[in-house]
Amino acid sequence: MEKIKPRTLSGFMELLPGPQAQMDAVMRVLRETYELYGFTALDTPAVESAQVLLAKGGGETEKQIYRFSKGDTDLALRFDLTVPLAKYVAMNYGQLAFPFRRYQIGKVYRGERAQRGRFREFYQADIDVIGDGALDIANDAEMPAVICEALRRLGIERFCIRMNDRKILNGLFALLGVGEQAAAVLGAVDKLEKIGREKVAAILTELGMGPDKADQLLDILTSADPMATLDALAGKNETLDAGLAELRAVTALLPGLGVPDHAWRVDLTIARGLDYYTGMVYETQLLDYPEVGSICSGGRYDDLAGYYTSQKLPGVGLSIGVTRLFYILQEQGLLNEELPTAPCDALIIPLGEDMDWAVRCAAALRAEGVRTQVYAERKKVKAKFAYADKLAVPYAAVVGGDEAASGTVGLKDLRTGQQVTVTPAEAAAIILKSKARLVKPVKGS
Amino acid sequence: MEKIKPRTLSGFMELLPGPQAQMDAVMRVLRETYELYGFTALDTPAVESAQVLLAKGGGETEKQIYRFSKGDTDLALRFDLTVPLAKYVAMNYGQLAFPFRRYQIGKVYRGERAQRGRFREFYQADIDVIGDGALDIANDAEMPAVICEALRRLGIERFCIRMNDRKILNGLFALLGVGEQAAAVLGAVDKLEKIGREKVAAILTELGMGPDKADQLLDILTSADPMATLDALAGKNETLDAGLAELRAVTALLPGLGVPDHAWRVDLTIARGLDYYTGMVYETQLLDYPEVGSICSGGRYDDLAGYYTSQKLPGVGLSIGVTRLFYILQEQGLLNEELPTAPCDALIIPLGEDMDWAVRCAAALRAEGVRTQVYAERKKVKAKFAYADKLAVPYAAVVGGDEAASGTVGLKDLRTGQQVTVTPAEAAAIILKSKARLVKPVKGS
Repeated sequence: MEKIKPRTLSGFMELLPGPQAQMDAVMRVLRETYELYGFTALDTPAVESAQVLLAKGGGETEKQIYRFSKGDTDLALRFDLTVPLAKYVAMNYGQLAFPFRRYQIGKVYRGERAQRGRFREFYQADIDVIGDGALDIANDAEMPAVICEALRRLGIERFCIRMNDRKILNGLFALLGVGEQAAAVLGAVDKLEKIGREKVAAILTELGMGPDKADQLLDILTSADPMATLDALAGKNETLDAGLAELRAVTALLPGLGVPDHAWRVDLTIARGLDYYTGMVYETQLLDYPEVGSICSGGRYDDLAGYYTSQKLPGVGLSIGVTRLFYILQEQGLLNEELPTAPCDALIIPLGEDMDWAVRCAAALRAEGVRTQVYAERKKVKAKFAYADKLAVPYAAVVGGDEAASGTVGLKDLRTGQQVTVTPAEAAAIILKSKARLVKPVKGS
Repeated sequence: MEKIKPRTLSGFMELLPGPQAQMDAVMRVLRETYELYGFTALDTPAVESAQVLLAKGGGETEKQIYRFSKGDTDLALRFDLTVPLAKYVAMNYGQLAFPFRRYQIGKVYRGERAQRGRFREFYQADIDVIGDGALDIANDAEMPAVICEALRRLGIERFCIRMNDRKILNGLFALLGVGEQAAAVLGAVDKLEKIGREKVAAILTELGMGPDKADQLLDILTSADPMATLDALAGKNETLDAGLAELRAVTALLPGLGVPDHAWRVDLTIARGLDYYTGMVYETQLLDYPEVGSICSGGRYDDLAGYYTSQKLPGVGLSIGVTRLFYILQEQGLLNEELPTAPCDALIIPLGEDMDWAVRCAAALRAEGVRTQVYAERKKVKAKFAYADKLAVPYAAVVGGDEAASGTVGLKDLRTGQQVTVTPAEAAAIILKSKARLVKPVKGS
């Protein structure tokens, strides 16, 4: 028979079992963190009506979206989790309790140009808090707390959450007489870190700002003590004042929420490109890898679902690009090789052909919660141990005629080579005790 | 602005938060069960090259598949998890340890005619054990054990795993002189339960079997004591003998694996429509709802990845259609309403405007593993408690000026109405103790 070459599409992550176990550990941490903060899980379809997904429309989205027909239905794969959330909240408005706090971890699709580290199918892990008409600023303060907790649980210590308020930028633009060009100016400011002050100043001048005004704006935005700089401008513009009040309210709550001072800073150059942010905005950088950009971003928006409903639904949220984050951790060698990736805690190795005692031992270990596999193939004993080694299984439970007769197993710690003859129940206790040392249980879960 | 009607496509399940929490509980049980049996997690893309997915081709698949182009790439959404597994094992053959035991829980897509209880996007939860050249029959015996464990953990007690061996059917066909029509006869036998003995007999006669032979076949297949009936035929056909030996080997191991006698039976009418099964086959019925058909099926195949590789890769596996199973459980009212679906264990209710002590209490509870939300909106206290009620949160932690001054919270059990003034640490202990009573922890996890 002619063979078809097995291949996985470029831009679609597919991992070997070891790295997959690490990826699953990352997902588990995010799930646990989001649940700890009282977010409810949601799971919306990956396929939606193209009309619904493209309600907002717009350049990049239209270009990158996977859109297709089935019968006479115009379909598309979701490109983020925010639009499906907007649809969901608009559809189910009457049945939800507000503030509605949901998390969703799911695959999204963007047909971007293929390049290293860019994915066309990738996981996003989002949280959002949606208010009905209004939403207190204290919700915004929780976002850095969640980021901090998630990264800490992932073992990432050296990061910085940078935050700003879009109202501050808008207020400054108004003060400096930037009128209709505000959106373009915002876009330029957002590029400050990428292209440098000089080039941004040039763009601002092109946009019609006088060189003095441009300099003044950039001086404020890059000030060493942004809060003091802003204080000096207090009372001059209402929008600026409102933004400053929000930023103060958020930062005042951070110590109580357990976010240490070194984990965040106010950075007035953060704008977030997306045009729906209207208040607080967040970006998160790995201090040792600034070149990878923000690994977790988000902010406050006024109107989640304006395309679907006239209900006013303000919200605040954040999104982690999990596939990309995992790729970066892997590329930078930051994943802990010590993390157990074996599919089981114990491999039962039968010495003879009789399988009955082997499967009874497996059942006994499993009943105690030990992840157990029986090696059932008729291979030489050496091959059976080689299999355990290849999978990095911590324990082998050897069972032959003697063990069957005496109701025991030969439990071998494959990391130390030590072997003891014990009952299956004793074996389970030994394995679980060792497991407890390897993986620190999260309290209360 | 003109609004677009928010809607979810027909045949795509999307749940409200409460049912979603129940669905997640089902998924968690399946994941834990599969891991307990030493299966490693896999996550392949939902989108693959159409050429790779359709290697086998064939009528229903081609008709139902979601296929589309992006640029000049011919793509399709996966319609099961078996073809992606075949591709994966063929691609990564040199890097996997065999037997390769993987589980995958993921969405698959079939553009079926929309009807109640039929889904176009649905979760499958599959396990497979893949051998390199050969695979011991003991692996087949584990399949009913996994089904049994999963259903038991889901709280489903009244089910029956029906099993057969395709070699027995093939042997019987050979004995009765069914030659080239074997596949068609198999198809007819597979319908026995659905259309009844008479109609199957008519089909068999149409296929060229004499009425006596057809009767003889159907007598054997529906015999009250199939093993005894088969024993009487031992030695007459090699294929039949091989099938009988496999069935005996599997059933002999079931008691040791902890599968109780009442949970399974040999049923020679089980054939499984799919033409790639070559040995043991399994179906699982809910005893009280036989009309919903098999909720978990699988079997042994000789050649997983013949379309991609000349490596001989026999395997045995099973698949649970989770979305459909959940739909059935929901429809039949079998889901436990007592299962907590609240997104948090405690809702912090601030009495005044000061949020500092409120967020400190939240941080303290979360540090102990209590899923905690702060209700930050400026509403009346009554509205805050109504919110807790709507979400069925078990505890409210009321914090006002007195509590902030004394470092306490007013912890109210919302199920009993009892309130105590305690420190956050004491509150956490009370909440976690109550939680332990509600959800029985799985040992060792």
